[in-house]
Amino acid sequence: MLIQNIRYMAVDEDGKWKVQSGDMLIQDNVIRNIGNFSFDESVEKLDGKGMLAMPGLINGHQHTPMSLLRCYSDDVPLMTWLNEKMLPLEMRMNDEDRYWGALLSMAEMIKSGTTAYADMYIGMDMVAEAALTSGIRAVIGRGLIAMDDNVEGRLREASDVVDRWHGKGNGRLTTMIAPHSPYMCPPEFLKAAVNLSEAKQVPLHIHLAETKDEERMILEKYKVRPIEYLHQAGVFERPVLLAHGVHFNEEDYNVLKSMRGGIIHNPVSNAKLGCGISDVKKLSERGIKVGLGTDGPASASSLDLFFEMKAASWFQKLKYEDASVLSAHDVLTMATQNGADILGIGEETGSLTIGKKADVILMDMNKLHLTPGHETANLLVYAATGQDVDTVIIDGKVVMRGRELKTIDEEKVMANAKERTKQLLERL
Amino acid sequence: MLIQNIRYMAVDEDGKWKVQSGDMLIQDNVIRNIGNFSFDESVEKLDGKGMLAMPGLINGHQHTPMSLLRCYSDDVPLMTWLNEKMLPLEMRMNDEDRYWGALLSMAEMIKSGTTAYADMYIGMDMVAEAALTSGIRAVIGRGLIAMDDNVEGRLREASDVVDRWHGKGNGRLTTMIAPHSPYMCPPEFLKAAVNLSEAKQVPLHIHLAETKDEERMILEKYKVRPIEYLHQAGVFERPVLLAHGVHFNEEDYNVLKSMRGGIIHNPVSNAKLGCGISDVKKLSERGIKVGLGTDGPASASSLDLFFEMKAASWFQKLKYEDASVLSAHDVLTMATQNGADILGIGEETGSLTIGKKADVILMDMNKLHLTPGHETANLLVYAATGQDVDTVIIDGKVVMRGRELKTIDEEKVMANAKERTKQLLERL
Repeated sequence: MLIQNIRYMAVDEDGKWKVQSGDMLIQDNVIRNIGNFSFDESVEKLDGKGMLAMPGLINGHQHTPMSLLRCYSDDVPLMTWLNEKMLPLEMRMNDEDRYWGALLSMAEMIKSGTTAYADMYIGMDMVAEAALTSGIRAVIGRGLIAMDDNVEGRLREASDVVDRWHGKGNGRLTTMIAPHSPYMCPPEFLKAAVNLSEAKQVPLHIHLAETKDEERMILEKYKVRPIEYLHQAGVFERPVLLAHGVHFNEEDYNVLKSMRGGIIHNPVSNAKLGCGISDVKKLSERGIKVGLGTDGPASASSLDLFFEMKAASWFQKLKYEDASVLSAHDVLTMATQNGADILGIGEETGSLTIGKKADVILMDMNKLHLTPGHETANLLVYAATGQDVDTVIIDGKVVMRGRELKTIDEEKVMANAKERTKQLLERL
Repeated sequence: MLIQNIRYMAVDEDGKWKVQSGDMLIQDNVIRNIGNFSFDESVEKLDGKGMLAMPGLINGHQHTPMSLLRCYSDDVPLMTWLNEKMLPLEMRMNDEDRYWGALLSMAEMIKSGTTAYADMYIGMDMVAEAALTSGIRAVIGRGLIAMDDNVEGRLREASDVVDRWHGKGNGRLTTMIAPHSPYMCPPEFLKAAVNLSEAKQVPLHIHLAETKDEERMILEKYKVRPIEYLHQAGVFERPVLLAHGVHFNEEDYNVLKSMRGGIIHNPVSNAKLGCGISDVKKLSERGIKVGLGTDGPASASSLDLFFEMKAASWFQKLKYEDASVLSAHDVLTMATQNGADILGIGEETGSLTIGKKADVILMDMNKLHLTPGHETANLLVYAATGQDVDTVIIDGKVVMRGRELKTIDEEKVMANAKERTKQLLERL
C-alpha cells in the first residue's frame, strides 16, 4: 500500500516532533519507505491528503473486559469501589462476558488511535481471541492473585497463556507474566512468578505504588516499602512493566534507575480514584522510562489516550506549578515509543521508521478545534481527541478507514456488551 | 417544534441528575412543555430516539478572538506566554481578525454543546456581530486595561457596548462591564468601572486570583490582597463574574460569601499555565457559586467544555486525594445552571425547565465509548466529549443538526481563520 501526499510526525535528534511530508510505502506488514522516494510498482494507493500520519498510540496498562463496568461506580473511594462495586461483578463474569467486554474495549481503542496495548486480567483466552478478531497488537498476561490455595493452578494458567498465544496473529500477540501487585502476591508466589518470567523469557507486568494504603500495608506486613518488596523477590532482575508508580521516595528511585522496562503512568485513573500524581518529571530525569495507559475502563471511563496525554501534561504542570514541565513533545513520546519500549515491542513499533511494523494512524486535521494550526505537536496533545482519528493501520492492515471499523461490527459489539451487562447485573 | 421520544436530564430536589423520558415542546424560543403530555397541533417534529437531551453548556469565561492563536505557544511560563507570545500578536489584530477568530470560537463552542458564554476582549462589535451570525447566546464586555492615558475613551467604549448590544438578537446578547484584573486596573479606574456597572445596571466581569504573582504584585503595590483591593473599589456591591479564583485564603472566603454572581473556574487553562487548582470544594461549602469556563483558546487549546468537566473533577479529587469530591452530578450543575446564574441569565437558561428559553443539546449516546451505559451523569462527565453532541438548539432555533452547523459555513470559517492568521503572523 502506498499512502500518498501525507504529512507525518517524525522525531528529530533532540527528541522534538516535527511535521514532514511525502509518501509512505507499506508492504506486507512493514513500513518499507517514507518521505520522498519514487516507487512505480502497481500497489494499492491511499490518498493521504489533508491527513497527518503518526505512530499508533500505545496503551500500556489495561483490563479490557472491565468495559462492561464503565461508569457503573464513580466518585467513591478506591477501596469501596474495588471491594463493594467491582469485585462482586467481576467474580460473576463468565467467558462470554469477558470476550465481549474485551472486544468493546478494543473497538474503542482502535477508534481512538491505539494500535498496541498491554492487558492484565483473567480469562485471557477470551482476550486473545478478541485481539485476533480486532486486529490490535496486544501484550497479554494472566493476572495472578494468591487469594485461594490453587497457586499452582494459577501459575499454570499464566504459563499456558504464554505457550498458547505468544507470537500468534502474525506476531501481534506477545505475553507477559502478570503478578497483580505486592499486596495480592505473598513473597513465595511473587518469586514463583519471577521465575516463570525467567523460564518463559517474557517480561513481568505488575501494579506498583498506586496508593498510600498499599505502601502502609506492605510496610506493616513485610517491614519494607513496596518497591523493596519487589526487589527482594527478584522482580528487577527481569524486564518489568510497572503500572502506576505514584508513590516513590528517593530510595525507590535508586532501585528503579537500573530497571529494564519502565513505568506506565495512568493519570486519569489515578486522579479519578484520588490516588495522586506520578512524578513523571523526576522519573524521566533519573532516566526511568515512562509510558502512558488508561488502566481499566471502569476507573478511567474512557480509553481515549488523547485524554491521557492531556491529563499527563496538565497534572505534571500542576504538580510543579510550572507550565514548561512535560511538554507536548515529551507526552507524544510517552504515548508512542516509550510505551512500545516498556511493552517489549519497541523494536517493532512506536515510531514511523523504515523497517518497523506498519502501526500507523491518520488524523483528520481539517477540524474547527484544530484550526488555524500553529504547532502540530501542541494541537495533537492539547486540542485533538481520539475522534479526530480517521484511519488506523495495524501490522500493515487497515482496521479503520473514514472512522469505520473494518474488523469489528460496531453495532453488534455494542448490543452484545449491553446484553451481557444486563445479564451480569441480574446475577448480582 | 416537538421533540419526540426523547430521554432528557432533569435535576431532582437533592441536586442529583436523573434521566427522564417523554416529549419536549418548543414554541417560539421557549420550552413550553416537557415530559408526558398530549399535543395535537400541527408543528415541526424532530425524532429524539436514541438521543439524550440536556441543557446547553455554559462557558463562563472566554476571549473568543484568541482562537487564531490556538497552540501558537504552549509549555512556557505564564508571563513569557502573555508578554512575549500573546501580546505582540494581539496588538496587531484588526477587526477582521477578531471577527473570524470569534466566529471560529463560536462554531467550535456550538459544535461541542455550548449554548451560552461570556466574553471579555477588545473590538466587541466584531464579537457581537459574530454572535448574531452564529446564533449563540453571549454575554459580552469590553476588556478594560488602563495601559494608556485614554481612560475616558476606554470607559466610553465599554459603555457603548452596553448601549449598542444589550438585548439584541432577540435578547440573546447581554452585556457586562469588564475591567481586566486588579493588576491591569488602578483604583480610580476600577471604581469608575464599578460605577459604570451600576449606572448601566449590568454585572461586572473581572479576572481575579489567577496566579501567585498577581497576589504578590497587589500586596506590594496596594498593601492588600487582590480580593480586598476589589472590595475597596466597590466591586462586591455589584453582581460580579470572577474568572479563575485560584488563590484564596480564609479572609478572602469571608469577603466572597456574600457576593452576588460567582466564580468561573477554568481548570484546563489554570493547569496549562501552571497557576494551580481553584478550591471548588471549599467555595461550594461556603455557598459561593462556581461555574466552568475554558478561558481563551490560546491557553486552553480546546473549547470543549466536556474536557473542562473532566478536568474539574479530576483536579479536585487530586487536590483532596479523595475520589468522592466533586461528583459528576456536581460538575454537570457547574457547567449548566451555576454558569447561567453567574452570567446573570439563570432565569432564562441553564436547565430544561418549562418556561425557560430553549437552549437544548441532544447527545448521541449510541457510541462505543458510552457503552454499556450504567450511570448517565457519569458517562456525560467522564466518558463523553463535545463530539458526541448531535443537535444544538439555542433560543428555540436549531443551529446544529446531525453535527452540521446551520448558521455557520465551517469550511469558510476555517479558511478565513487560517488566512487571517497567516497575515497576522506576517505583520509580526
